[in-house]
Formats: sequence, C-alpha cells, structure tokens
Amino acid sequence: MFDAEQLKAIAEARLAWEREVLAPALDRTGERRDEFTTVSGRPVEPLYTPLHQASSSYLEQLGFSGSYPFTRGVHATMYRGQLWTMRMFAGFGTAEETNARYRYLLEHGETGLSVAFDFPTLYGYDTDNPEAEGEFGKCGVAVSSLADMEILFDTIPVDRITTSMTINGPAAVVWAMYIAAAERRGIPMAALGGTIQNDILKEYIAQKSWIFPPRPSMRLIVDTIEFASHNLPRWNPISISGYHIREAGATAVQELAFTLADGMAYVQACLDRGLDVDSFAPRLSFFFNAHNDLFEEVAKYRAARRIWARVMRERFGAKNPRSWWLRFHTQTAGCTLTAQQPENNVVRVTLQALAAVLGGTQSLHTNSMDEALALPSEQAVRVALRTQQIIAEESGVTSAADPLGGGYLVEALTDRMEQEAGQIFAEIASLGGVVPAIERGYFQRAIADSAYRYQHEVDSGRRPVVGVNCYQMPGPLTIPLLRVDPEGEQRQRERLARLRRERDNAAVQRALAALRAAAPGTENLMPYILDAVRAYATLGETCRVLREVFGEYREPSLF
Amino acid sequence: MFDAEQLKAIAEARLAWEREVLAPALDRTGERRDEFTTVSGRPVEPLYTPLHQASSSYLEQLGFSGSYPFTRGVHATMYRGQLWTMRMFAGFGTAEETNARYRYLLEHGETGLSVAFDFPTLYGYDTDNPEAEGEFGKCGVAVSSLADMEILFDTIPVDRITTSMTINGPAAVVWAMYIAAAERRGIPMAALGGTIQNDILKEYIAQKSWIFPPRPSMRLIVDTIEFASHNLPRWNPISISGYHIREAGATAVQELAFTLADGMAYVQACLDRGLDVDSFAPRLSFFFNAHNDLFEEVAKYRAARRIWARVMRERFGAKNPRSWWLRFHTQTAGCTLTAQQPENNVVRVTLQALAAVLGGTQSLHTNSMDEALALPSEQAVRVALRTQQIIAEESGVTSAADPLGGGYLVEALTDRMEQEAGQIFAEIASLGGVVPAIERGYFQRAIADSAYRYQHEVDSGRRPVVGVNCYQMPGPLTIPLLRVDPEGEQRQRERLARLRRERDNAAVQRALAALRAAAPGTENLMPYILDAVRAYATLGETCRVLREVFGEYREPSLF
Repeated sequence: MFDAEQLKAIAEARLAWEREVLAPALDRTGERRDEFTTVSGRPVEPLYTPLHQASSSYLEQLGFSGSYPFTRGVHATMYRGQLWTMRMFAGFGTAEETNARYRYLLEHGETGLSVAFDFPTLYGYDTDNPEAEGEFGKCGVAVSSLADMEILFDTIPVDRITTSMTINGPAAVVWAMYIAAAERRGIPMAALGGTIQNDILKEYIAQKSWIFPPRPSMRLIVDTIEFASHNLPRWNPISISGYHIREAGATAVQELAFTLADGMAYVQACLDRGLDVDSFAPRLSFFFNAHNDLFEEVAKYRAARRIWARVMRERFGAKNPRSWWLRFHTQTAGCTLTAQQPENNVVRVTLQALAAVLGGTQSLHTNSMDEALALPSEQAVRVALRTQQIIAEESGVTSAADPLGGGYLVEALTDRMEQEAGQIFAEIASLGGVVPAIERGYFQRAIADSAYRYQHEVDSGRRPVVGVNCYQMPGPLTIPLLRVDPEGEQRQRERLARLRRERDNAAVQRALAALRAAAPGTENLMPYILDAVRAYATLGETCRVLREVFGEYREPSLF
Repeated sequence: MFDAEQLKAIAEARLAWEREVLAPALDRTGERRDEFTTVSGRPVEPLYTPLHQASSSYLEQLGFSGSYPFTRGVHATMYRGQLWTMRMFAGFGTAEETNARYRYLLEHGETGLSVAFDFPTLYGYDTDNPEAEGEFGKCGVAVSSLADMEILFDTIPVDRITTSMTINGPAAVVWAMYIAAAERRGIPMAALGGTIQNDILKEYIAQKSWIFPPRPSMRLIVDTIEFASHNLPRWNPISISGYHIREAGATAVQELAFTLADGMAYVQACLDRGLDVDSFAPRLSFFFNAHNDLFEEVAKYRAARRIWARVMRERFGAKNPRSWWLRFHTQTAGCTLTAQQPENNVVRVTLQALAAVLGGTQSLHTNSMDEALALPSEQAVRVALRTQQIIAEESGVTSAADPLGGGYLVEALTDRMEQEAGQIFAEIASLGGVVPAIERGYFQRAIADSAYRYQHEVDSGRRPVVGVNCYQMPGPLTIPLLRVDPEGEQRQRERLARLRRERDNAAVQRALAALRAAAPGTENLMPYILDAVRAYATLGETCRVLREVFGEYREPSLF
C-alpha cells in the first residue's frame, strides 16, 4: 500500500539503521531477554515499519468499519453509536441469591446479564440427583426447573435486557425454561434477546462438560438454530467459544482457528439440514478470551473478523452482509488471575478489557480480582464493572473505530494471525473436519502441547507472573471474600421436592413421552422440550429422556 | 507515504462508505454524543485511514527508534534493552519515616527513588520557621539540613540507584545536601545519578511554589546545569515539567508546548551564559503528565520527541545526537483520581501508565489509589508499583519499540499535536518569549480557560467521571489509609535545635557570608552553596541569604 519508491528508501534506511544504530546498541547493552515473544510464544521484532505491510492492499485487507472484510469492526460507527454490552458472568448458590446479584449489577450500570450455572445444571442433573452431590451452587446457580428460572429472573425486565446463558449439553432445555419463564410473565419469545452458548464442539475440544455424543449434540444445536431463526429473531442461538479453548492452554491462534473451524462446522451442519445460510448466519455469535498480550489479542479479534467475513461470503456464499459479521463476546482471561496479591488482578483485567475494546468486542465480562480465590464478592464485581465503565467513558478509546488500525505492529500481527490460522484450517481439513479431528485427539494434543510450553515458561521464570514467580511477598489476604448462604442447598432441595409433589405429574409424563417419541427421528425437538419444561418437567428429567435416546459421550483415549 | 493510485482508490471508497454505510448508520441509530472529543476537547473523527497521512514522509516524520527525529523512541531497542525506571514519588513526615518507605519500595522492586518534600522545604523554610506552621511533613518529607538528608538516604545505595528530587526554588541547596550526604559516605559526586526538578518557569506558569524572581532563578538554574556538566556527568540538573501545568488544567497540547517553550528558554539561558549546547543538552530531561485519554497522551509524547529533536538540531545547532533526545519521566494524572470508590483509581492509573509506556517514557510514577484521600498507604503504593511491573512483564507491550507507530489515529493525533504546538510557540514568541509571557499572564490565562472548559464539561455531565457524575454510590470507604507518626514534627524540631547547638556555628557563618558575597556577582554559586550545607547550614538559613540578595517573587495581577 506504500509508494514503491518510498518503500525502497525505507528499506535502505532500515538497513543503515540496523548497521549504525541497532547493532551498536545491541553490542553496548544487549537485550533483557534472549528472545521476545508474545504470550503465545510467537516472535516479536524490535521495530515494525511500513516494510511489514509492503505488499498489502488497504481496501482488501482493512477497508472501513462496517464494511467488508470488517477488519476494522462490524459497525460503521462502532462505540460512537453504541457501547459494547457490559455483561458480567454471574451465578452462585440459589436462584434467589443470584437474582439479588443481578439486581445489584444492574443497579451499578451493567447493561446485559450472563448466567453461570452450577456443575449439576451444566451436566443436566437436578440438585437432588446423587451425581450432584457436593457441587450445589459452587461454580454457578442451580436451575433444576422452570420454577428456579422464574425466581432467577424475578423482576428483571427480560424484554428490555439481553441475557446470555453459559450452557451447552442441556442448552435446549435451559433455553426452553428461559422462554417459558418469560411467557408466564406475558413476554412473547419473539421479544427475547440474548444468547445461549450451546457450543458442544469446544466441550469435546477443551471444556469437557458434555452429555451426548457429537451427532445428537449437533442435531440439538441445529434444532435450536432453526427454532431461533423462526421464532426468536433477536436471539443468538449459539456462541461459538474460544474462551475455554484458551483457558485450557491454547495459544491465541489456536483459540482463533479452532473456534472458527467450529463455527464452519456448525454452518455446514445447518446447511446439511437444508437451512438457507442467510436465515441463520446473522445470529451466529462468538466468544473469545482476552489474555494478557495486548497487541496479540487485538490482532486476534481483527483477524477473526476478516477470516469469518471471507469464509461466509466466499466459501458459504452468504449474501446478507450481516451473515459476514463476526460479532463476539469477550471475557478476560481467568487463567491469568493470581491468588497472590489479588488487587494486582485489577491491573490485569484492565489491560485485558482494553484489548477487547480496542479489538471491537460487542460484549464484555471483566473478571473480579478475587476469582482465583472464591466466587466474586459484591465489592470485587463492582470494581470489575467500573473497569469497563472507565474504559468506556474516560479513556477516550471509544471515539474512533479500530483505533489501532494501520499500526505497523498490529497489522503485522493481524496478518500473521490470519496466515497461521489458515495453516490450522488446512490441518483440520486434512483430518476430515472438526469431529474426526476431535475423535483423533488433534485439538486436545495441540492444546496440551501449548499449555505445557506456557507452564514451562512460567515455572522456569522466563515468563514472569507478578506475585507468583517474581515480586512475591508473604502476608495475609487483604480483601474480603463472598460468603454463600449455607442453607441454600437445603432450601433448593425442599423446593424441588415440593415441585415434584405439586405439579401436574400426568402432564409432565405426557410431555416427556412425546419428547421420547420424537427424539430418535429428525423433527425439531425444541417444541417438545418447551412443552416439557412448561409442565415443570425438571432439567434432570428432560435430559434423562435424551440421555436414554442419545446415549452419553465417552472421551476417546488420546495418549 | 502511500501509493498515489491506491490513495485515490481509498479516497473514492471512503466517499462511497460515507454515503452507503456511515450515513445510513447515523440515520438509523445516531451517535451517543453530539461530538466526540479528546480529554483536551479536540475533535476525534469516527475512523482514521491512510488518507490522514497522505502527504507524510515516513523517514522524515517517523524514522526508526533511536534515530532522528526520534518519534519512535530515543533508544534503538527501547524496553527490550532496558525497562523504564520505576520511580515512585514518595515522602511524608520525618526523614526516618520516608527512609522506611523507600526501603519498602526498593524491596518490592522499585528501580529509582523520587523525593516528595513538604511545603516548608519547597519554599526554603526550616521546620521551625513560623512560615512552616501546620505544614510539617504533609505533602512530603521535611528536609531542613544535611542531617535530615543523611537520615533520608541512610543505607540506600545512592551510587547504584538514581534519585529524583521534586524541588525548584531551593533546588540548588537541596541538591547540595544530597551531594554532601553522599560525600560523607565516601561516594564522590561524579558517581551520583539522578534528577533535580529545578524548573522555575513552570512554577510561575502553574505550580506557584517559587521563591526568587525570574532573573536570579534562571541564574541559579544555569549555575546548576553548568556545575553538573563539569562535575556530575550522570546527573540531570533540570526536569522541565509539564506535569503541573497539566494538573492546573492545561490541555495536552498546552502541556506539551508550554513545557517545550520552557525548555527552549533554559537552553537559551545556558547559551547566553556562554555554554556550548552539546555540553549540557544531553542532560536536560523532561517530565510529563499521563492523563486519561490514551491516544492523545501517546501522541503528545511522540510529538514532544519529534519537536525537541528538530529544535535542538535545527534551531540550536546541537551536533551530538544525545542533545536531540527528549528523555522524560511521567507521572499519572493526580487530578483524575477520585475520592469516591478509590479502587477505581487502579483502573485509571493502569490506563495512564500504559499511555506513558506506549509513548516511550524513561521513568514512571504511578499514583496510588488512595491519593485523593490521604498520603499513600504501603498497600496502595504497592499496588501502584505492581501496576508498572505487570505492564512491563505481562502485557507484551515492551517487546517492540513504538508499538502504536503507523496507526492512522495515533499518527494523525501526533501530527496535529505538533502542528498546534507550533501555533503556541508562535504566540509565545510574539509576546517576547516565556518570561514576558509569564509577566503578561499569557500562560496563566490560557490554563484557566482550559480548566474552566474541562470543569464545565464535568459539571454538566458531558464529560463522565465514573463514581463522580455517574455510577455514584453511597457507602463508607473500604480501603485503609496511612497514619503518619504524630510525634514526628516534635522530633524534627528537637533534631534541628540540637543541630544548631552542636554544629560549628562559626564555620556556618563563614560559609553563609561567602555565599552572600558571591550572590550579587556572576560566579557559579554551587560551590558556595555546597560549602554552606557541608557545614550544616540549614535550608532556611541558606535560602534566607539568597532571599536577602535576590528578593522574592510577587505574582503580577492578571485579571
């Protein structure tokens, strides 16, 4: 994109600089480390110049915000038009406790909700199932039935605020409960906006909270996507997630490439069902991690948009520009938080949140400083939310779209990210696609290798972690931690027992029988699931039917 | 710097984008505000592209790190070679208490010291002077004599660590005490590295802690610069400071331009003394503010380097490339800290510190979260220091020089900053230079106007300040505050009384008489001042002699 004559002059001047300025400086004082790499271990050069973009075309590679290939953002005005949604992932204990936390967050300026469910719920078990023993309310809220969902969203204006739910194996059932809870308040499903994570491929790859095998899982996902495209035009029926892939130890480019490969697999599955690409693609959404390396992360988001736009237009032939958009939620990297000196995490989260914003995220969760120690306290979660508000309102970074665009470093990293993702896509294709690659352990091994490299860097001290392998200090913890109601589990068990006594159990059995009858076929299961949860069939009961028909996934032996 | 044909295509595409993408988006949803401006009130466009740099030459405007015009940094390898100095401004109560804080900071990884003096010391008064009443140890440490200075640096390796001292009116006297304290430990002055602020022009302009009128003040400054150039080759005898100008309410470009104008006035004063420009210019140093607006601040630092390099080479004819370097310390903006929800200040300080690092600072102070409420506690100052360490070690931003270089937004802001500074230089020149402009109240009025605009924006809510004019919350303070030793002042008074009894008072009188005799002439006063402090003449006694000879400055009536 640069003038050829000037490029020649720059190249000559750069050689002279290397000889006359850089080399003597290196001779004189050297560098602090043998090599400088990104958090993902990719080399970084001492200085980036126009020579790194010599052959690049501005209009092809960057273009304008709101224009193909959307490198510079999916919206023309970006945050001048509307800020990202400040959406704090939250949930613990009972639906009552979590409801109180949501109201606290909304009072303090949160603009979207995000539900964390407990382990039993994530695996499709009710609180009173023996498999749930000892896990009630620990990593999220327990939602065993529509009754819990009604309490969870009590007094919350779900017709005006969007809700994201981190749920995968039982996503269809939990989503049905959300829809039914709104119906009971007179809010039609068409008015609901939000997201279900509903991304089972990354569970097989990294996060491991699956229920069913890949084939019926993909069928359920296509069912939800199809159902949403007909009935909930404001809903994102899937959030294709790199977050957990990164948390498991993947590099930035692995996070990017594995996630987009999953996305392509979902698109293909929908096309295989016979759906028109433009009927569902505009509502596909993504979810990325914001790790420590500011520029590497920004490059990742920018590359993700460019790759996805090209794939959707060129490979899948989407015609609607909205089908080309990669819209994404971001969460700051939980794995970077330290139990040591927890106030330091405010600094990390600020830098990570900034990366997400500079990268053009649509929605953001900022971790609380105490999350390496406990569930977030009100005070800690408030500071985390204020972090977003300060970036939004005080830092000035929201005034122009893609504010790092054109930077020699960021553009070089973006181009490299795109190119390296292409190599990974080719590897996955050579294995026959995402599901075969999962079955052969490709992703799992690649992530394990990256995680090992990173951990080795930390353990050896080559990758400093402040307060952990450097700048340690002894001393007691100085921040207050959350106390969860110790009576919560008992109250939840009593509520569930009462529900099983008082509901119309014949209606429950009828609805579950209808679901059982439909499940082996090819019909969309969402209407059956909705009927079951409307009758107050529990999560565990509904999932048990599907478990019986679909079976459960067992991870292949990999090593 | 871009290919002409491509520029034409970009310009056409941009027009199409405005018509077909931007305008419909604006029609559909509008923007959140009527106008988007930097913290300094300058407009920001929705998107920056190569068109903003159409006529720019890479080699002339940017070049390479460590190369003229140093836009991309003064060192070739920047932070790959050496990190900035982590230098926390600290001082309170007695020399003993502050010494303990310095040792705490060094134990936690600080790499340079920075002394905050109390008001009486800043005005050249001893603790027992009636003028000092009620101000002992409040905004810094009290240093009334060499004896205090010896305690202040007790056990601190001043031959290996550099010390910055924020002192102006009495800078020569306090510096002499530092030199003499080192001498008494057997450390020769040539081995000392550090900085005295010693910038009286910005006191007249903004900070208002002056003693003498401009002419003798400038003479003392040239004395110190000349003395350093002969005797302390590692010392920065002046830190030309925009920090306080900004804190008083100036905009970013005013901070930049007023500071560089002051710098040029000091250079001219040294040339008028007959010094060779290359004998002193490499040791001139600067001190800037890091305010909230990330990109505006980065642009300010980059423009500052480019302007200064050109001025030193082209206007003052400096031949040594080091004379072209603008090296600077940065402090995060104290005026942005809020007493409300003080933990939020960790977020602000992180963003501001990041701006300084992305802008290539040589040295950095990060404010503590509690500084709007009290003197910093150990815990708060530790988090502030950790903020720098996390940016340095975990964020990846130190791996490449000038990591934002080439960014369309940052380059446009840098060019505008340079251009607008040029307009201010012309205004100052038209008033006859810095001192006449001070006498006519030019700076003071310009700053008052900017401060008024900013405050009006905050008061009207157009400029959000989280926790102050939005996202407020009631509730008690949740962080612990520092308690200063209530007996400190009494102990300091007793020490001073004992000093006056026990020192060789005849030697003190001889040294002060010699200083008094030399002061009206043109001789360099540093040797006389050194002799006086070596004899334990107090700060107040030494400054009284100079007050008697030079008189005291009275601010002209401005409005």
